[in-house]
Amino acid sequence: MLDFSMGKGWALDETSFDPAFFGKVEANFSLGNGYLGLRSAHEENYLGQTRDLLVAGTFDRFSPEEVTELPNAADVTNIEITLNGERFDLTTGRIMYYVRRLDLKTGMLSRDVTWQSPKGELYSLHFKRIVSLKRLHTIAFQISVIPRQETMIRFQSGIDGRMTCDGSQHFTEGQTRFYDKKYLQFVPRTIQSDITFVVDATHDFYANGEETQPVSDINISRRHMFSNFTLEAEAGEVVTMEKFCNVFTTRDREAAGMTTAELQAFALDRLKEDQAAGFQSLAEESAAAWREKVWDRVPITVDGPEFDQLVIRFAQYHLQLMTPAHDNRMNIGAKGFSGEGYKGHVFWDTEIFLLPYFIFNMPEAARSLEEYRYLSLPGAHAKAKHNGYDGAQFPWESAWLDDGEVTPEYMGTDVVTGQLIKVWTGFIEIHITSDVAFGAWSYYKCTGDQDFMDKYGYELIFDCAKFWASRLEPGEDGLLHINDVVGPDEYKEHVDDNAFTNYLAKWTIDKAIEYADLLSEENPELFAQLEAKLGIMELREKWAYASAFMFLTKPNENGVLPQDSTYLTLQDIDLTKYKNQAHVGGIYKDYNQEQITKMQVSKQADVMVLFYLLEDLFPREVKVSSFNYYEPRCLHDSSLSLCTHSMLSADVGNVEQGYQMFQKACMIDLDNANPHSSDAGIHAASMGGLWQCAVQGFGGLRMLGGKLRISPNMPQAWNSLRYTAMWQGQRIAVTAEQNRVELVNETGSGPVEVEVWGAAYTLTDRLTVTK
Amino acid sequence: MLDFSMGKGWALDETSFDPAFFGKVEANFSLGNGYLGLRSAHEENYLGQTRDLLVAGTFDRFSPEEVTELPNAADVTNIEITLNGERFDLTTGRIMYYVRRLDLKTGMLSRDVTWQSPKGELYSLHFKRIVSLKRLHTIAFQISVIPRQETMIRFQSGIDGRMTCDGSQHFTEGQTRFYDKKYLQFVPRTIQSDITFVVDATHDFYANGEETQPVSDINISRRHMFSNFTLEAEAGEVVTMEKFCNVFTTRDREAAGMTTAELQAFALDRLKEDQAAGFQSLAEESAAAWREKVWDRVPITVDGPEFDQLVIRFAQYHLQLMTPAHDNRMNIGAKGFSGEGYKGHVFWDTEIFLLPYFIFNMPEAARSLEEYRYLSLPGAHAKAKHNGYDGAQFPWESAWLDDGEVTPEYMGTDVVTGQLIKVWTGFIEIHITSDVAFGAWSYYKCTGDQDFMDKYGYELIFDCAKFWASRLEPGEDGLLHINDVVGPDEYKEHVDDNAFTNYLAKWTIDKAIEYADLLSEENPELFAQLEAKLGIMELREKWAYASAFMFLTKPNENGVLPQDSTYLTLQDIDLTKYKNQAHVGGIYKDYNQEQITKMQVSKQADVMVLFYLLEDLFPREVKVSSFNYYEPRCLHDSSLSLCTHSMLSADVGNVEQGYQMFQKACMIDLDNANPHSSDAGIHAASMGGLWQCAVQGFGGLRMLGGKLRISPNMPQAWNSLRYTAMWQGQRIAVTAEQNRVELVNETGSGPVEVEVWGAAYTLTDRLTVTK
Repeated sequence: MLDFSMGKGWALDETSFDPAFFGKVEANFSLGNGYLGLRSAHEENYLGQTRDLLVAGTFDRFSPEEVTELPNAADVTNIEITLNGERFDLTTGRIMYYVRRLDLKTGMLSRDVTWQSPKGELYSLHFKRIVSLKRLHTIAFQISVIPRQETMIRFQSGIDGRMTCDGSQHFTEGQTRFYDKKYLQFVPRTIQSDITFVVDATHDFYANGEETQPVSDINISRRHMFSNFTLEAEAGEVVTMEKFCNVFTTRDREAAGMTTAELQAFALDRLKEDQAAGFQSLAEESAAAWREKVWDRVPITVDGPEFDQLVIRFAQYHLQLMTPAHDNRMNIGAKGFSGEGYKGHVFWDTEIFLLPYFIFNMPEAARSLEEYRYLSLPGAHAKAKHNGYDGAQFPWESAWLDDGEVTPEYMGTDVVTGQLIKVWTGFIEIHITSDVAFGAWSYYKCTGDQDFMDKYGYELIFDCAKFWASRLEPGEDGLLHINDVVGPDEYKEHVDDNAFTNYLAKWTIDKAIEYADLLSEENPELFAQLEAKLGIMELREKWAYASAFMFLTKPNENGVLPQDSTYLTLQDIDLTKYKNQAHVGGIYKDYNQEQITKMQVSKQADVMVLFYLLEDLFPREVKVSSFNYYEPRCLHDSSLSLCTHSMLSADVGNVEQGYQMFQKACMIDLDNANPHSSDAGIHAASMGGLWQCAVQGFGGLRMLGGKLRISPNMPQAWNSLRYTAMWQGQRIAVTAEQNRVELVNETGSGPVEVEVWGAAYTLTDRLTVTK
Repeated sequence: MLDFSMGKGWALDETSFDPAFFGKVEANFSLGNGYLGLRSAHEENYLGQTRDLLVAGTFDRFSPEEVTELPNAADVTNIEITLNGERFDLTTGRIMYYVRRLDLKTGMLSRDVTWQSPKGELYSLHFKRIVSLKRLHTIAFQISVIPRQETMIRFQSGIDGRMTCDGSQHFTEGQTRFYDKKYLQFVPRTIQSDITFVVDATHDFYANGEETQPVSDINISRRHMFSNFTLEAEAGEVVTMEKFCNVFTTRDREAAGMTTAELQAFALDRLKEDQAAGFQSLAEESAAAWREKVWDRVPITVDGPEFDQLVIRFAQYHLQLMTPAHDNRMNIGAKGFSGEGYKGHVFWDTEIFLLPYFIFNMPEAARSLEEYRYLSLPGAHAKAKHNGYDGAQFPWESAWLDDGEVTPEYMGTDVVTGQLIKVWTGFIEIHITSDVAFGAWSYYKCTGDQDFMDKYGYELIFDCAKFWASRLEPGEDGLLHINDVVGPDEYKEHVDDNAFTNYLAKWTIDKAIEYADLLSEENPELFAQLEAKLGIMELREKWAYASAFMFLTKPNENGVLPQDSTYLTLQDIDLTKYKNQAHVGGIYKDYNQEQITKMQVSKQADVMVLFYLLEDLFPREVKVSSFNYYEPRCLHDSSLSLCTHSMLSADVGNVEQGYQMFQKACMIDLDNANPHSSDAGIHAASMGGLWQCAVQGFGGLRMLGGKLRISPNMPQAWNSLRYTAMWQGQRIAVTAEQNRVELVNETGSGPVEVEVWGAAYTLTDRLTVTK
């Protein structure tokens, strides 16, 4: 059971030991630093725990029938404690006190337990664990045991390489090394992608703070190595073990040019440095990095319910730990760094739900994420070519740069037919290509990063538009259509002219035309380069034709924009049961996919995402009518849904409904009533979505047509919201209140054009606007 | 804790639930039928259990750095039971009654439990499980729950393909199929050897014996599929689930020519047949097969301690379940069919410790085991060639026919140097080649199977002798040596002229000469064939030279036969500590391999095995002196040691010491004081060894120089021993007493020449000899 009340807006607590919550707490309390993610299983083993150590970008494919995935690296978190011969096991004996805490401020996981063993002996145990945000390879533990009677304490701790992804083993058996009777090293290699991992561990011991030497022996076996340490403790003595671990791989930039032996030596040297620093010092250093990189840099303050404040920080915490901003060959997985769900793959979630946070707060991270797309172009070209199209068709799911499409082709078994279920998204959920172009353009417009645009951005947009020009199909109506797709609403497979898909495709083509014309005039040298690469002049004509003749659904007589060519004609059914469901996907208990495709029911925001991205394309009335039409038909069975609806609620004049949706979105991972909702990992896009609700929704921060707009729409529960936003190199501090907004240009280096509540202003150093 | 007192010589019991004994009971209570072996983990999951489903001959190599091994197939034994919301879990609540039993007579595993749940509710549970000895692919379960109060009973049961061998995953993700909302099917494929497995499961339910339909749903996920079944039971109602499973593979002979789809359909049809038969009928049928194939066919009766009788049946039980006599492309793994130890590989254990049981009891199985060696000749040729030799050099460890040597090159890490430890056996423990020749010859001599000899036996012996002729090294003494080997005593690496190795090599060469001469005279056609294949005439000369000039250690002035060229000159140390050790390998805690090689200490029987195989080569005085010299220096740190010593004890005039050794050998797997001694599986050779002690040692059954000898040497604890022996197609029933032996020719089809206590007799229908 999670508790949000004890941490003063800075910490989440678990206040009772409950195996039903293992998955939820493991995922939500994950540690990480963008380089690695470490799921927070208990040190001691229990049935039902899932241990995960994930290292960004280390994708491997187990067999030709499976798609590539982020492998589950060797575990260092399993530490068994035996106390006077009794195994420390909270399913036995009696728990007198139990709190597990994730401290967002410092990135520290801790657990304080008072336990009476089955024999009746009493122990206090204190666990601390960090993944350093300063030293990206470092994991450290501190465990103190205080027995209330004379006790023989035994720790069993080491490295366990028997981990799999649900049974798929991505590593060779590996070398086990033991140096100086002190340093454990495990060196396996991924079986297909040939990445060598070096995992190290070593231990220090203290009795009442004085370093001590336990009796120890080592057990080295297939794929795992454990040391056993035995210490005698008097009643009340504080016996402390510190464990230092690190992980390096040959995919690391700093490993470039090193032999495996050199990397092993390098890693061991780093381990010794960590050990010399000690746990306390590593923890302080990492906490300082959290302060500097996140909390001081992206301060967001809600004057309102403490829980809302906590959730926004919780989202920022995960946004930080899940993002491999250190390496532009990597991107963000759909379950962040907290589980094996979606195999660590990258979706449109990055551009639409995650990128805005980084654009407005950490533009260098945003640039790295978009550079990943540019570097992935070979895969996008291959996918287009494979499907008979031109240009760049971005994969629905992507992994390593040259993997191309990695969506599984089949998943699960149809309980009716007994056959495997085909996954259509990788084949026909094609709007991702526009999403990538839109992401690059957004980054450019918000940051003004012309260097990015020159090197990558123009080419990305042209290449995406090139794909679209080849993908359009002439219809009998003389117009160009996009048939047989899945739009954002994944309850509708094989639809024609999905509004989101078509409007964004047209947007991409129009941007390509705009930039082709611009470059040919203003940067002929770059234009010539891109012309040589892509054939822009010839494309320019196709684009013009496409833009002019593209079919787009138009609002009907009630002002509702049709989601696709047939949605509004489908059967309407009573969705009350599913709207009030405790779990997502309940409709599948009554209907199968074929039936759902024929009903007016949506999994998630579809037209609404279009209204969010291309805000000025439709009059307010169309948005209101469409919102009121689709929302009652939307089951929010995707974590990408509530946040979009919440953000739009102000645009359609219902901020309080938006606030309720925000509150529901907070529960996607944190709901105690759904203990298993995060078992496969937290919902990464939802973390971005929570920030979007708060800052882009209530805080009103948007980029519209390349221009900054800050028009807060505060819910009644919030007296004020303070946040900062980077805009073209300048940092603006915003204080939003119900009827007043104050902007301070903290960089102070130039005037910023900004729209506030419908009026245009120029911010120089400070601006206050009252509604 | 194992109990041997309750089963009347026919069953082993575990009388308390103790996780420390999980491994011991899982392995010792394994079920199997030669086609498959199923480790006996509890239905419900606990930490520390190991589930194994092994199918003979389905070897797979996980990665080029690992050797091939028998993969751990999908599990069907995990069945979770939830009772009024409480998980059936014997680590919680209170156990009022607990007995787990392996009934050797019927091959049934059962468990009877009365359990008070943590909430205080009372339940009786009765578990039965068989692997059919009649239907080689069938596994069946029956679970009855009798609640003492109204109870909602939930079973979760299915197929789990997430199993690994210590982390190595040998299977692709596989297809999951669900037919008629009733039949689960999982179809994975081994990753390197490309063997498709079909694993099926289905369930039936009964309330007070009447078939009933539970509420059910299905959960199909990555690599696993489970059904959930819910039933309401009244107090005292007997709710029964029967689960039927089977496993087929494309390596099965009956699958030849089938497509995967055909095999899937075939397997499903068999499953339906099993289900139609029902658990009780399958269990009776399998029990009848145990009676017919084992207990009636190989009756062994000890008039002595019931435990001795039980242990002999226990050995017969495992000998039956571990032996893939149905397929001559397969052989016996060193841990039988009860664990992942030694990766399912075949050692000299087969010929020296296991083959005699089959030769004297089930000659057709013995023939299959020796045909395996013949079919493995390509691997033996490849190994010889790789090492620069001629002929057939059999691998120290072997797996699939054409694998050749599969001994791991490295195992574990030296705790002193931190480096990997090189495993020398695969390189230089070369006596296996003679052992194979000896096995073939023994089979021939005992059975008189000329067809085998003509088709396989002569060629095997010639090919082995061809290897030896090329392996001999001329020394400065003008003689031929075999340098740098490991003999049977594996505490001595890199020794020269190991007595066992050299004498057996010479024996092989001499047999080749004998048969070359014989064939050239008596079967010129076969001789010509083999001449064309092997070049026997040229070899004949080499063999003659080798036989004449081979160096053989000779008994020293005290009548002790030197184990090798230096053993007797090594340092003698006080071994008292290790001779009295509770666990094997204790000497490694004080000395490393290099030091042990320099001391007069042996792991296991070495010269003694030579005395066992070539009994007439040395006078009794040499055997007595050597036994008395080596036994005190032998730590019996291998399961191959005590049985050989015990068998020889009569030869050296100390039957009571032999009986003590037999009692110790019984404890190798069954010792309650060593709960972990069978964790990786039972000791297969020890099972053969127990039979050897009883029947070849005390019962005096030997083949000597091709002749039958039955000279019992009964320990005082045994009044009589009755056993049967197949000899050249005739079945002889033996009743051995302290001073009297009675032989009955049950086949009655011809006279049998037999030596009893030093005198020659001819048995026609009945013979009684008194000492």
